[in-house]
Amino acid sequence: MAEPLHTKVCIIGSGPAGHTAAIYAARAELKPVMFEGFLANDVAAGGQLTTTTDVENFPGFPEGVMGQEITDRFRAQSARFGTEIFTETVSDVDLSAKPFVIKSGDRTVTADTVIVATGAVARRLHFPGADTFWQRGISACAVCDGAAPIYRNKPLIVIGGGDSAMEEATFLTKYASKVYIVHRRDELRASKIMQNRAMNNPKVEFVLSAEVVEARGDKLMTSAIIEDKKTGEKREVEANGIFFAIGHEPASAFLNGQLELDEDRYIVTKPDSTATSIPGVFACGDVQDKKYRQAITAAGTGCMSALEAEHYLAALEDSQ
Amino acid sequence: MAEPLHTKVCIIGSGPAGHTAAIYAARAELKPVMFEGFLANDVAAGGQLTTTTDVENFPGFPEGVMGQEITDRFRAQSARFGTEIFTETVSDVDLSAKPFVIKSGDRTVTADTVIVATGAVARRLHFPGADTFWQRGISACAVCDGAAPIYRNKPLIVIGGGDSAMEEATFLTKYASKVYIVHRRDELRASKIMQNRAMNNPKVEFVLSAEVVEARGDKLMTSAIIEDKKTGEKREVEANGIFFAIGHEPASAFLNGQLELDEDRYIVTKPDSTATSIPGVFACGDVQDKKYRQAITAAGTGCMSALEAEHYLAALEDSQ
Repeated sequence: MAEPLHTKVCIIGSGPAGHTAAIYAARAELKPVMFEGFLANDVAAGGQLTTTTDVENFPGFPEGVMGQEITDRFRAQSARFGTEIFTETVSDVDLSAKPFVIKSGDRTVTADTVIVATGAVARRLHFPGADTFWQRGISACAVCDGAAPIYRNKPLIVIGGGDSAMEEATFLTKYASKVYIVHRRDELRASKIMQNRAMNNPKVEFVLSAEVVEARGDKLMTSAIIEDKKTGEKREVEANGIFFAIGHEPASAFLNGQLELDEDRYIVTKPDSTATSIPGVFACGDVQDKKYRQAITAAGTGCMSALEAEHYLAALEDSQ
Repeated sequence: MAEPLHTKVCIIGSGPAGHTAAIYAARAELKPVMFEGFLANDVAAGGQLTTTTDVENFPGFPEGVMGQEITDRFRAQSARFGTEIFTETVSDVDLSAKPFVIKSGDRTVTADTVIVATGAVARRLHFPGADTFWQRGISACAVCDGAAPIYRNKPLIVIGGGDSAMEEATFLTKYASKVYIVHRRDELRASKIMQNRAMNNPKVEFVLSAEVVEARGDKLMTSAIIEDKKTGEKREVEANGIFFAIGHEPASAFLNGQLELDEDRYIVTKPDSTATSIPGVFACGDVQDKKYRQAITAAGTGCMSALEAEHYLAALEDSQ
């Protein structure tokens, strides 16, 4: 193992938040180091955007841009301004003393500030066809994908029983001809108000105590097999989309409890800031956001992290 | 005057915040209406970005993009998804009852929600040469422009005496060979800690009781004339850049006190939200941000506003 590399700013993660932090930190001559991950959380470097096809809502791309292409553009911009990027996943951090210590399997880096931008992953089910039709009928983000032509005026399925499932189903009725909410239990976890909103929508139909067990189609998905969990009966339902609304998992486990997390394991940040419970450690993007979760909001908080790290470092120099 | 047009979402302003709000609201089928302004606050539709040349720090553009070009791209994207855009400046709003009323000289719009994205304008001085060399030596944003090649290893001037002048001067020492802080009074307004940070920097030289009275150069600025306000003496100083750090003016006057503002006239928003003091009215971008002020942070808050307006409208439908 090589001698530890020291940096003023170590960025963990490589989605829109991580790269925007890198662009700002690099342009501020802070020579940031980024661990972009190597299939961290089973997602390629670049994060959740790499699992999508057309991104239509990132401002600046009026014709849309492919998820992988915009990720490549973020990375090229970070690299252009001098970000040193390691394609390794961080296995361990020590935030208990200064400088902070960040380790991958191959390398140890010490850092004056750390920016955590490890993101979150939408939970997905893996029934037959679920991977085949991913992004060709199957999605985990109604806000991102619902407006796509393949879903317009078509029957769709939302899987889940919580508030976000109700919300996504209601949202999708803007585009869909019909929306089934399929939930494996016979009771919903969603709040009464959100249940009512979905129930009062004439386009929504609930299918409770049921599971989607297969997605079928040709190039695009065209139907789903739904199994009634009480009777064991299976039926084929015409549907051109399935939206998972079964929660997200923020990538905060590697922190090993060193930063304050909320009850859903998201990193807690101070209001209107990306400061965490440890001075000098900042968090941006989906690992600290369970409300908006968009590429553009993640990028905004990435910029905030870099500017806050810059301020922190300037104050640190005063005291030395 | 035509019959009032009613909309679910009326967006006032057309910078990155306004257009990102429009893209999200339009994709959510809310059919937003935008007043993009007609030389509102003496700035073209699109806002402050239209006054810059190369934008290098907006993620997604590794080779940089011209301020006017990215503005055109934002607008094309809003329009593509169906935003109705009026090239008129809002003169008057009534937020005291629902629906809200928004008026330009030509038109009245009623709206269920309003998104205020009118931005802020950096204060500039208008001595001879100040306009000629704008963006060719003269800037109002060190973070945005300081890293440009024309400022590297060159003597620069920062005008101002407050915290942000100290901060911008200290920041510019990363690139500059020398930074003069020119302030018209003989005392600084900046906090002691920020003064000390600038004073302890060997590249910073204070020029107090003084004013820049002219910028000179050929294609780019190369020198400035500085007048000592006590003696009246003028001298020419080699300098390749002047950065104004004399504050910003948020475009909130048209609200006529109907939303809560802070002491600097920025709109007050709830923590980690764009909600204002009036339910159904949201504020995003620089009109509510005096800390980060970047195009990418503005865009992030624009997205937040649209998603919050969408939630507000969904709850409104429940109650009807």
